[in-house]
Amino acid sequence: MRRLTHILMSPPCRLIRLALGEKRLAYDPAAPDDPQKHLPLLVDMDGTVVVGVWAIIDYLEGMHPEHPLVPEDPVERGEALRLLDWTMTKFHEEVARRLLFEKASRAHTGHLLRQPPNMETIRQGRASLLANLSVVAPLAEQRGFLAGRNLSLADLALAAHLSALDYYGEVPWSELPAIGEWYVRMKSRPSFRMLLNDRVPGQPPALQYSELDF
Amino acid sequence: MRRLTHILMSPPCRLIRLALGEKRLAYDPAAPDDPQKHLPLLVDMDGTVVVGVWAIIDYLEGMHPEHPLVPEDPVERGEALRLLDWTMTKFHEEVARRLLFEKASRAHTGHLLRQPPNMETIRQGRASLLANLSVVAPLAEQRGFLAGRNLSLADLALAAHLSALDYYGEVPWSELPAIGEWYVRMKSRPSFRMLLNDRVPGQPPALQYSELDF
Repeated sequence: MRRLTHILMSPPCRLIRLALGEKRLAYDPAAPDDPQKHLPLLVDMDGTVVVGVWAIIDYLEGMHPEHPLVPEDPVERGEALRLLDWTMTKFHEEVARRLLFEKASRAHTGHLLRQPPNMETIRQGRASLLANLSVVAPLAEQRGFLAGRNLSLADLALAAHLSALDYYGEVPWSELPAIGEWYVRMKSRPSFRMLLNDRVPGQPPALQYSELDF
Repeated sequence: MRRLTHILMSPPCRLIRLALGEKRLAYDPAAPDDPQKHLPLLVDMDGTVVVGVWAIIDYLEGMHPEHPLVPEDPVERGEALRLLDWTMTKFHEEVARRLLFEKASRAHTGHLLRQPPNMETIRQGRASLLANLSVVAPLAEQRGFLAGRNLSLADLALAAHLSALDYYGEVPWSELPAIGEWYVRMKSRPSFRMLLNDRVPGQPPALQYSELDF
């Protein structure tokens, strides 16, 4: 069986879990011996080992071209990869690090050891979340999916981040109707099911986390 | 003319400058109006706009397949992308953020506003630099380049980071002979020339920064 070593609240790991789901590729989940290891780590049926988001996506698109996650059309492709990069660098830095890494334990995010939760950091993260999502909201509204009419890595990357933030009740959906509507569509996809069943020991999810109509 | 908007001490921007150099593609450098903008940003001859490392690399490999930066062989390809991801996430997080973002100004790295240099952060960054480079040093020594016998994105990503760190004298080359030998080969490449001419106003580079035999 295919095996994916991942940690629960890491957005890159969630992105690859969603990508495997969209490709209809089943896998056994595994926990790493060390959460600061380079993850996610995929071991395919034939024993091939692929490590990290970039390599795993390249491998999956090459070996399993059905259900493509990167558009063929050059403009849409550039847009999907722009938003993927934006989410994995800028949104990750300004929002996820500040909120997620303050709330989730290091064992579930793989981030470096740090001080106890800092309210000023959380406040900045919340402001950045609203500012950044207001930039992408019109894209979701006008295009259907973030990069165009079809689902792409751009959607999976942002959904991976938002799902982890939503677990901790950190997404003010009522202030973000366009993103909320897009996210309800994302979380209704079969690829999302496993993520919605995630439970961090000692930290139950926010109420709406696994509700499909919210 | 092709135009690249970039900032001096940002490793992702340096990676794309090296990639353009390796592809023998000339460009006019430009500075962004806002250093926290999503960079690098490439405007090609025909006006095509491509933003962010992921999209620009995909675009360059697709439009300019000569001088490939991603190996064809599946094993070497996976290894190049694993090391690219490792450098852009783990090495960036544990080393570059801690050293570079403490020493260079925000206008040249695009990082978020923060407190004055913190010696404890710098100390941790220096320890991580040695620990992380000791993991990749044997690869450079055994293979010639990091992912195999040919230059790949793995080399450009690490060289992009080390060149920025070296500008501030933060790479203890004498403790890292295998990486030092690989880096001397990297900085002798024509693609490196422009980077070695970089000067941050008010912060001259460490002595060995642009010396080719050190």
